Amino acid sequence: MRTLNVTLKNHSYPVFVGAGTLAKSGALLAGCGFKGAPIVISNSTVMRLHGKTLLAALEKEFGKTPVIKIGDGERFKSHESLFGIYDAMFKLRAGRSSWILAFGGGVIGDIAGFAAATFMRGIPFAMIPTTLLSQVDSSIGGKTGVNVPQGKNLIGAFHQPSAVIADTEVLKTLPARELASGLYEVIKYGAIASKSLLGYIEKRLPEILKCGARELEHIIMESAQIKADVVALDEKETGPRAILNYGHTIGHAFEAATHYRKFKHGEGVAWGMIAALRYGREVGLLKETEADRLIKLIRGAGKLPPVKGIRFDDIWNALMLDKKFQHGDIRMILLNKPGKAAIYNGIEKDSLCGFLKKFLAESL
Amino acid sequence: MRTLNVTLKNHSYPVFVGAGTLAKSGALLAGCGFKGAPIVISNSTVMRLHGKTLLAALEKEFGKTPVIKIGDGERFKSHESLFGIYDAMFKLRAGRSSWILAFGGGVIGDIAGFAAATFMRGIPFAMIPTTLLSQVDSSIGGKTGVNVPQGKNLIGAFHQPSAVIADTEVLKTLPARELASGLYEVIKYGAIASKSLLGYIEKRLPEILKCGARELEHIIMESAQIKADVVALDEKETGPRAILNYGHTIGHAFEAATHYRKFKHGEGVAWGMIAALRYGREVGLLKETEADRLIKLIRGAGKLPPVKGIRFDDIWNALMLDKKFQHGDIRMILLNKPGKAAIYNGIEKDSLCGFLKKFLAESL
Repeated sequence: MRTLNVTLKNHSYPVFVGAGTLAKSGALLAGCGFKGAPIVISNSTVMRLHGKTLLAALEKEFGKTPVIKIGDGERFKSHESLFGIYDAMFKLRAGRSSWILAFGGGVIGDIAGFAAATFMRGIPFAMIPTTLLSQVDSSIGGKTGVNVPQGKNLIGAFHQPSAVIADTEVLKTLPARELASGLYEVIKYGAIASKSLLGYIEKRLPEILKCGARELEHIIMESAQIKADVVALDEKETGPRAILNYGHTIGHAFEAATHYRKFKHGEGVAWGMIAALRYGREVGLLKETEADRLIKLIRGAGKLPPVKGIRFDDIWNALMLDKKFQHGDIRMILLNKPGKAAIYNGIEKDSLCGFLKKFLAESL
Repeated sequence: MRTLNVTLKNHSYPVFVGAGTLAKSGALLAGCGFKGAPIVISNSTVMRLHGKTLLAALEKEFGKTPVIKIGDGERFKSHESLFGIYDAMFKLRAGRSSWILAFGGGVIGDIAGFAAATFMRGIPFAMIPTTLLSQVDSSIGGKTGVNVPQGKNLIGAFHQPSAVIADTEVLKTLPARELASGLYEVIKYGAIASKSLLGYIEKRLPEILKCGARELEHIIMESAQIKADVVALDEKETGPRAILNYGHTIGHAFEAATHYRKFKHGEGVAWGMIAALRYGREVGLLKETEADRLIKLIRGAGKLPPVKGIRFDDIWNALMLDKKFQHGDIRMILLNKPGKAAIYNGIEKDSLCGFLKKFLAESL
């Protein structure tokens, strides 16, 4: 097991990474100062696969532990689920000294974190992310929230967890597509901040895809460290934290244009990175060989659902609604070279529009 | 006009107090760094009385200013109203650079503040409280939230405003009962922290009740300063901030037991203070003459709806649900002397129970 500390201005917390940490979670959390049983927020899929291990670990330390389950899937990251959680918490007579443990992927982490942020004006929470994506992404940084009909994550709060436990063993039960989806996000960290991480993934891709414990521990630690460093610089995303959105601008538009049904979030990001790499080439950044090598790596991580057939207008409309496109000033994260990203403001609308039309027509 | 600075660890903001500040609000807010028109959140009653003055002041500085109205009254501090606000904000194409101006009493301030805390994970907001109660209480300290069927303010967040403007002129349109309700809270500040404020209110009560500008400015400044000092010590209410709850423990129970229909919040606090003063006498704190003098002052501020007829069981059940009564450890704020409060833990259940039965039977 390795430990990473996320150090923020008013709050720091440990991230424990390694095989078998789930079975030790009770002791790890007690070591972080948590007292009394948490309220676990999870879903049936995760509880069926790993609930027994979790509850054994928690109950040994904290006694009888209640579990609140919501539906499995992005569409359950809703106000309705949030109310369901509040109601269940009131029934459990939760109070200001209660704490929440989010046990699941990004949906669970985001909604459980938002429940913690808003229940009696905020109670502590910890996270045991069970997907590669949530282990490297949403469990670090304190973004919590729910989706609304107008878009994803539009209602939320910044609320930092007090501990994160990432068990690599748990990832063995992930469907291949889900694992790849997280791996795209890992590749993103390499692309924006670490050439050596990119090299490592290139070299160890087969072991990673087979859930090798050592390889997963390494890429999770590296990714979490990169995210933690960026978040420490800019907790509320007023500036430099935006580079974490590499691949997300166009990626989100692909997801939104297909009503979040065609692509998993990581797959959207993968397409967004491919588009950003090609667009970067078009405006003269990055070498052709560098862009191609990165695209090859992305393609090698899994099979992406095709973008062909998506209507350009749907993509464009989604892009214009993106909260990153403030006051019509189009901003994109682009790579100067592999491992080095920068924020580019004032992207020309016509140039991006023309590029995207071509990209949609040419990509498979 | 006088200005007070609320100085918190990561955030400070000015409170402008004085007659005619509403008409200058545009310039005052622009001076605080706000750019672009705010989204005003208010209700029809306040807009009818003071909307013209507000919009003239804002539009001179910021141009066309949209207003979102919710219903007037505590029952509109609900999730339904909150969704209505979000929806209206999306229709107005609000984004991360938007800001909210809460224009109304405590209900408006709390719900508009919570909307600001959670819209796109938090946008800035300013407050123009239009009741004496909200000028001295909810506009300082960053508590925001909504009511749920299980209780008041159980869902919320700490989110500090970036400016507060308290116009004493506006209070002239308040019903007498509403003014008294705020005055009880002012007396509370005197009771817990300032003998001189108590003396001032005793001496100038007639002028205060006639909305004398100088007197109101003085008591608002004193109250806001006391609250700001306590909040600066304990922003998230983990400790000493609890003394602000003087009169609130029993007061809330009176409000809840009568389904928030019989008493205004300040009236509940007034009864809570009277009960706490009598209970303090019973356990040997405070002199009889001091308690009587304070009760006389509270009674002089307005006519309180009687507590006689409220069932003891309803009060007791409400008390046991109070989030301040954690793990059965009953905690009350009591006065050692006028102007000096302290937190008393481990109040004996039987003693409080017996006292309350007697109090209900004897009080008018």
